Amino acid sequence: MKGFMDENFLLETQTARKLFHSYAKDLPLIDYHCHLNPREIWEDKRFADLSEVWLGGIQPDGSFAGDHYKWRMMRWAGIEEASVTGTKPGYARFLKFTEALTLAIGNPMYHWCHLELQRFFGITEPLTPESAPRIWEQCNDLLQNDPDMTARGLIRKANVAFIGTTDDPIDDLCWHEKLAADPTFSTTVAPSFRPDRAVNIHKAGWLEYMGKLAQCVGKTRLSNMEEVLAALESRVIYFHGHGCRASDHGLDYVPWQAYTEADAEAVYQKALRGEALTTGEVEGYQTVILLHLGKLYAKLGIAMQIHYSCLRNNNQRIFKLQGGDTGVDAIAQNTCGGNVSKLLSALDEAGACPKVILYSLNPGDNAQLGSLAGCFQEGSLPGKIQHGSAWWFNDNKTGMLDQMTTLANVGLLGTFIGMLTDSRSFLSYPRHEYFRRILCNLIGSWVENGEYPNDEAALRRIVEGISYYNAKRYFGL
Amino acid sequence: MKGFMDENFLLETQTARKLFHSYAKDLPLIDYHCHLNPREIWEDKRFADLSEVWLGGIQPDGSFAGDHYKWRMMRWAGIEEASVTGTKPGYARFLKFTEALTLAIGNPMYHWCHLELQRFFGITEPLTPESAPRIWEQCNDLLQNDPDMTARGLIRKANVAFIGTTDDPIDDLCWHEKLAADPTFSTTVAPSFRPDRAVNIHKAGWLEYMGKLAQCVGKTRLSNMEEVLAALESRVIYFHGHGCRASDHGLDYVPWQAYTEADAEAVYQKALRGEALTTGEVEGYQTVILLHLGKLYAKLGIAMQIHYSCLRNNNQRIFKLQGGDTGVDAIAQNTCGGNVSKLLSALDEAGACPKVILYSLNPGDNAQLGSLAGCFQEGSLPGKIQHGSAWWFNDNKTGMLDQMTTLANVGLLGTFIGMLTDSRSFLSYPRHEYFRRILCNLIGSWVENGEYPNDEAALRRIVEGISYYNAKRYFGL
Amino acid sequence: MKGFMDENFLLETQTARKLFHSYAKDLPLIDYHCHLNPREIWEDKRFADLSEVWLGGIQPDGSFAGDHYKWRMMRWAGIEEASVTGTKPGYARFLKFTEALTLAIGNPMYHWCHLELQRFFGITEPLTPESAPRIWEQCNDLLQNDPDMTARGLIRKANVAFIGTTDDPIDDLCWHEKLAADPTFSTTVAPSFRPDRAVNIHKAGWLEYMGKLAQCVGKTRLSNMEEVLAALESRVIYFHGHGCRASDHGLDYVPWQAYTEADAEAVYQKALRGEALTTGEVEGYQTVILLHLGKLYAKLGIAMQIHYSCLRNNNQRIFKLQGGDTGVDAIAQNTCGGNVSKLLSALDEAGACPKVILYSLNPGDNAQLGSLAGCFQEGSLPGKIQHGSAWWFNDNKTGMLDQMTTLANVGLLGTFIGMLTDSRSFLSYPRHEYFRRILCNLIGSWVENGEYPNDEAALRRIVEGISYYNAKRYFGL
Repeated sequence: MKGFMDENFLLETQTARKLFHSYAKDLPLIDYHCHLNPREIWEDKRFADLSEVWLGGIQPDGSFAGDHYKWRMMRWAGIEEASVTGTKPGYARFLKFTEALTLAIGNPMYHWCHLELQRFFGITEPLTPESAPRIWEQCNDLLQNDPDMTARGLIRKANVAFIGTTDDPIDDLCWHEKLAADPTFSTTVAPSFRPDRAVNIHKAGWLEYMGKLAQCVGKTRLSNMEEVLAALESRVIYFHGHGCRASDHGLDYVPWQAYTEADAEAVYQKALRGEALTTGEVEGYQTVILLHLGKLYAKLGIAMQIHYSCLRNNNQRIFKLQGGDTGVDAIAQNTCGGNVSKLLSALDEAGACPKVILYSLNPGDNAQLGSLAGCFQEGSLPGKIQHGSAWWFNDNKTGMLDQMTTLANVGLLGTFIGMLTDSRSFLSYPRHEYFRRILCNLIGSWVENGEYPNDEAALRRIVEGISYYNAKRYFGL
Repeated sequence: MKGFMDENFLLETQTARKLFHSYAKDLPLIDYHCHLNPREIWEDKRFADLSEVWLGGIQPDGSFAGDHYKWRMMRWAGIEEASVTGTKPGYARFLKFTEALTLAIGNPMYHWCHLELQRFFGITEPLTPESAPRIWEQCNDLLQNDPDMTARGLIRKANVAFIGTTDDPIDDLCWHEKLAADPTFSTTVAPSFRPDRAVNIHKAGWLEYMGKLAQCVGKTRLSNMEEVLAALESRVIYFHGHGCRASDHGLDYVPWQAYTEADAEAVYQKALRGEALTTGEVEGYQTVILLHLGKLYAKLGIAMQIHYSCLRNNNQRIFKLQGGDTGVDAIAQNTCGGNVSKLLSALDEAGACPKVILYSLNPGDNAQLGSLAGCFQEGSLPGKIQHGSAWWFNDNKTGMLDQMTTLANVGLLGTFIGMLTDSRSFLSYPRHEYFRRILCNLIGSWVENGEYPNDEAALRRIVEGISYYNAKRYFGL
Repeated sequence: MKGFMDENFLLETQTARKLFHSYAKDLPLIDYHCHLNPREIWEDKRFADLSEVWLGGIQPDGSFAGDHYKWRMMRWAGIEEASVTGTKPGYARFLKFTEALTLAIGNPMYHWCHLELQRFFGITEPLTPESAPRIWEQCNDLLQNDPDMTARGLIRKANVAFIGTTDDPIDDLCWHEKLAADPTFSTTVAPSFRPDRAVNIHKAGWLEYMGKLAQCVGKTRLSNMEEVLAALESRVIYFHGHGCRASDHGLDYVPWQAYTEADAEAVYQKALRGEALTTGEVEGYQTVILLHLGKLYAKLGIAMQIHYSCLRNNNQRIFKLQGGDTGVDAIAQNTCGGNVSKLLSALDEAGACPKVILYSLNPGDNAQLGSLAGCFQEGSLPGKIQHGSAWWFNDNKTGMLDQMTTLANVGLLGTFIGMLTDSRSFLSYPRHEYFRRILCNLIGSWVENGEYPNDEAALRRIVEGISYYNAKRYFGL
């Protein structure tokens, strides 16, 4: 029996151990997609206790913010909402969470939590109802007193070279500016352009948002599509000037309609008048924006991330009380692969296909995404079109193995840009270590089984590439 | 090499063996969903021979009934229908079946049959054309002469604490009554409420069925939706009074239309007049019934099982000759996950979401179902919304591993209520043992690989919970 | 650590080794579905160098033909098109390909290439940038000078008993005739009937093609459906007279409309007039043809292969430059399983269901296809309806394991007709060896784990059946 989460955690063969410890472990992290708040990095936030870090708490605006993965698990364990997102004291919530966690065998959160305890707090014993009081004290002592246990300290400790945050086009990026100007902090913190609120013409708040976007580019209103596209373009250029390397599009599904800008104009005017739009009209407007932005990304070298197939806010009771991102989302089913194809082909035919990273929340789409990515590769960059790392509900051992095995089968694993955290927490960096262990174990298993030569230089190149160098090249770092 | 199906069958590590033999093996069975005939339990049925038990035979009404899993396998082996469901003698059919079985490497039926031979008949040699005559004699001798080899004896031998049968709303439950009143039989046999024939307004026989339902509640006809809902409600209450803990809905796909009761009324009247209904109308009527029943189930503490994505009666030649459930069903493809979400959310918003167990026949839906279940959990009960055990075509080693691994990844495996047989046979109980072995092996593999602490108390709680105690708590036993 | 691709490659247990080396390895190959050019077999083609064999070259008609799997991988590695399908010299392209291949860890092409080097060229060292010059010389020396390294020599060396090519109905089959008449070549080379161009009434070139089909049956035009069906029938009979054992239908998805021949007639006339057809009309026309041909296949004992769910020609830039089959295809998503059911049921009810082999490019369809196949089996032939071998993007270790495990779970693995190459290359035969190794390892793992008895005769029958004898019986060889 292997020890519980010891130094060779998830490394089942000698080759896996060699690859991880010699090559993967110590490379810097490129966390090219996350949801960290740049202000908290600038202000070098310090945390009151483990409950605040892990489970969250009441924000200045009165809302309750935190890790919805953990809320979900607590609800699943039958814990009442007051102990999940409610007013119960932090320690009581922490004890409840511990109870739930002991039932979470096989869940990646079990590993994430223990990797966080090990790497940031030096705690190697399992978190159980018995050890919980001890661990609570130890962690809080460090969080409150250790000078390095702040936002920046945690980032430094995790050896993070690059952080790509997720930002709204109307964001002024002031915290990114401050961070870039600070010579004492060497991690690059770059914004990513996520224009979902402008793209989602059919969702609540769109019209109001377009007013803000207008203001942001010095106008009172965006009176036509040309102005919409110009406003977005101007914000992309602003982001690019602030070091933006990636955009992000969170779509229910990837739309496609063969719309001209004039077609979209008619839809836009209809929407301005508050008239209801057909699904085709919504999709047509979205297609025109996606194509326009895609071409711009290509010109500026910005990668286009497309995340789709999420069924959001399923529990309307919780959503109405707590808003979005509160642990009531699920995997959707879509058959929009043909639209992905048309979108990329139209960009490619225009000579303006950007780097694209495709993510679907439905793991049943993996084989299709890998096979689609292969249709649009070309000589400018290895792995120009990426099948993105296993996302959200798939961000676990079997999900990563499935994504990487599929990519190896239908594509070229050696060009993969690897892991990201997608996280809101400063403690999430060990997810990169988790990924690297799984990667090294997978590759090690192939070598040990005679499926690839035991060629150290070639293996090193592959492992170091996927851990670090491929992303470095991909994002031009 | 491990011995063939020996005591450590499917238990590949020391931890797996420990967990199974010390904790899982001897717990009683809660078989909360099956298709046993309660009359046969009451009458303590005895079987003529192994062919009758395994392959079935001609019924009093002239039809041929038996295990369609086995018929299907025999047809696949190229055996002519006369030896499958036809008039060939039992022994000849048994020999043909044996031939097919030797080709069934990797099929769960191979294991089920041998577990049945081992546990009920004490036969440990493999069934082959060579051993078949011996095994035929041995089994028949026991079936005909051993006083314990009857319906009740087999149930006792298998240590079954609870049996949930599947019953039509118009059933008078007389056999359940007799069984409940019999102090000599300690296994609880409870009815489950399956109102498919009232829900499927678009299927043959609906109108005639509604007449029977009316009669059953003392009316000549159900003249409107109110009376339909009242009739169903009255039968749910009747079932509840007879110990019913679960309902079951077998749906082609999960429907959703935002219908009021008045909308459904219009559809109902149209259907009464024999007019054709649109798909939306069918779905609207169904939605109203499902919501009404769901709320009632919540009130009475009855679990709502939803089975969907089965493509039935594909071979119309066989269907016309032999009727349904004759081995010509298949897995369907649906994209109705959004409807599941709307149904559960509507019930939840009404403060009346019952315990729900979701099953899809398409294994590609597993990740979605797990993620959806997580959206509707709440403090009243751990794992209130369950992703049901691997069903039918998925009821095999890889199917169970996929369902449990997915559940562990996206949910909380420790709250899973585990296995059921879904069977028509009194010999099927070793499927619970099969499941428990696979469960213990999965958990053991995680512990041995350092992915969960070797904490005996915690592991015991998880294994015993999934094997028995979670279902006991869930169904209030 | 096992040696790199040594004699026990992919054989992880003693049982697996025994099964492969004693039973599977030396059986002849039945390659019942490939895309070899029969003219090249007749002319006993010789290759200029390894680049021509592996990467292709400029054809007499000016196009560039070769292995699009390899082009795709090269593009993915960031190699410019000139070195993929362009004018760069063969050696330069070979070196570029070698670079890409070192990154292709986990890709089946890595294994295919090395198996080809081992089996045909006696080269056991890995292909790397360092070894590439040596390997280039060695291979070219053999290709140019060894009298057995020609099309026929390679086929002989690979012990191929039967080759099923893929042929258009209007093909005169002259090369098949010559081959059949040649007593010096013992491999049977039979045509397969692939009438896609007549079936695809909605695709470019259909009308022109129908003119050629008319000519081919001695008419100036096919003026109605009756003549279309008669023309196709006459060509099927012609093919059958030339040894045809299988047909092949490459469909975007499997269509179904309850059309009569008269309904199809109306569609046909509309298409002749150049009018646009609705999707339903296209599907109706296709249904009528598929049913008509299916019945004919049943009568003549021809197997009906149905390949579907491919999303073709995604990259329109490459497609316009290079045409189809150039490495820009992907996996589609369809929900047409219900249509497969209706098609087979209609044929079955007419007493005229042929042998059918179902392939979907989407691995998410595996469980459905296996379950559907089971609905239409009957006593005339074991495994009459086959779930075809893992196809194209699934033709790799995990894809084959998934297809075979699913088939074992929901069907009868022992009746599987096994592998085919689907290839355009004379070097692809080791894919059969690859398959047999994976098969033996899977079966060996079950036996070693106590899941099937260590019954040598039964295992031999299963392994030899899937490797050779099942296909021999299925195709009447």
